[in-house]
Amino acid sequence: MLKKTVLIIAVLFCFVSVSIAADLTPVKLPAPVTKGGRPLMQCLNDRKTDRSFSTKKLSAQILSNLLWAACGINRPHSGKRTAPSALNWQEIDVYASMEEGLYLYNPKTHTLDPVVQSDLRKHTARLPQPSRSSIIGAPLQLIYVADYAKMRTGISDEDGKFYSATDTAFIGQNVYLYCASEGLSSIIRSFFDGNSLAKEMKLRNTQKIILVQAIGYPQ
Amino acid sequence: MLKKTVLIIAVLFCFVSVSIAADLTPVKLPAPVTKGGRPLMQCLNDRKTDRSFSTKKLSAQILSNLLWAACGINRPHSGKRTAPSALNWQEIDVYASMEEGLYLYNPKTHTLDPVVQSDLRKHTARLPQPSRSSIIGAPLQLIYVADYAKMRTGISDEDGKFYSATDTAFIGQNVYLYCASEGLSSIIRSFFDGNSLAKEMKLRNTQKIILVQAIGYPQ
Repeated sequence: MLKKTVLIIAVLFCFVSVSIAADLTPVKLPAPVTKGGRPLMQCLNDRKTDRSFSTKKLSAQILSNLLWAACGINRPHSGKRTAPSALNWQEIDVYASMEEGLYLYNPKTHTLDPVVQSDLRKHTARLPQPSRSSIIGAPLQLIYVADYAKMRTGISDEDGKFYSATDTAFIGQNVYLYCASEGLSSIIRSFFDGNSLAKEMKLRNTQKIILVQAIGYPQ
Repeated sequence: MLKKTVLIIAVLFCFVSVSIAADLTPVKLPAPVTKGGRPLMQCLNDRKTDRSFSTKKLSAQILSNLLWAACGINRPHSGKRTAPSALNWQEIDVYASMEEGLYLYNPKTHTLDPVVQSDLRKHTARLPQPSRSSIIGAPLQLIYVADYAKMRTGISDEDGKFYSATDTAFIGQNVYLYCASEGLSSIIRSFFDGNSLAKEMKLRNTQKIILVQAIGYPQ
């Protein structure tokens, strides 16, 4: 009888563990605080690129504010955003890679939608680079991905590349300034293995990774 | 005697007038105010693209703050700036086109160096576009120009185009946020005749216009 009870408990325990592990659930972010922050000129004065990060995690509120600052909706009636995009295509998707997994930021619902339950941060640096270990240890890597299917049909390859680059950088600069406002560290970079990372992220063939930006507390 | 005096005065007057008209002199901008401005989140909340501009000119102080916000030096010991650039190439030059002429912003001296004494604002829109008349009537057009000579030797054409696009947009977003802070209107755009404008600007063959951004008061 005792053996049977232990077995049932063990089975239940395993089931619960596996169940939690298998489900990366959607994250409903708290409402972003769209007022406040440090004065703009001081944020510009402190804007810089950092290469040293603590592994301390970001709170849900910081994550919420940061993602809204990046490319959140600032005009709900039109769905327009904090960052411009060519012809308002809004073709740049922001993925958030954290220890628990990869999420896609949805500005409409202000949620993080689960994509892959795996820590992909190590794939955001090309090859093993000891100098990059602090960067990929940052709690958050934002991965900016262009979806060419959202651009005008018939756009030239050159124009597509151009606009996906500008529209990513508008977002990235918002993130840099948010980090300056909150005393967070950040570095945006283009040196990663795009094919390998795209495969890990299970991207569609109309999608292309443009830049990656690490965010965390200073070490 | 009287006739001679009048003649001398007239000649002197003409000389002075011609001299002023012929010389577009360097503009030493007032020191930028690198503190203050509205809180960052409110700037992000008000960030938008505008198409309607008053012809009212910007003051020297606003021009100074705006250019510093765009890509001014925020770390004097290293010369690093408010906007990042790939490998710190600082390959994007910011030209200011105003009624009196075209200037090049020099972040090191915080001056506007004269380039062409001609109002080139009308050349920043492709063809006569009535819908653009308000935009090209804005008192200031910032023209972002990449200088490929400042990039690493041997960089591929594709990489050069990519970084010149991202590095321009980092600057452009700073300008958008400064405008949101100061209640100014702004629109960044890629639709212009690059060859014709480059000729008017007397650009070198290593230079390429990336984007143009209008700034002014709302109409």
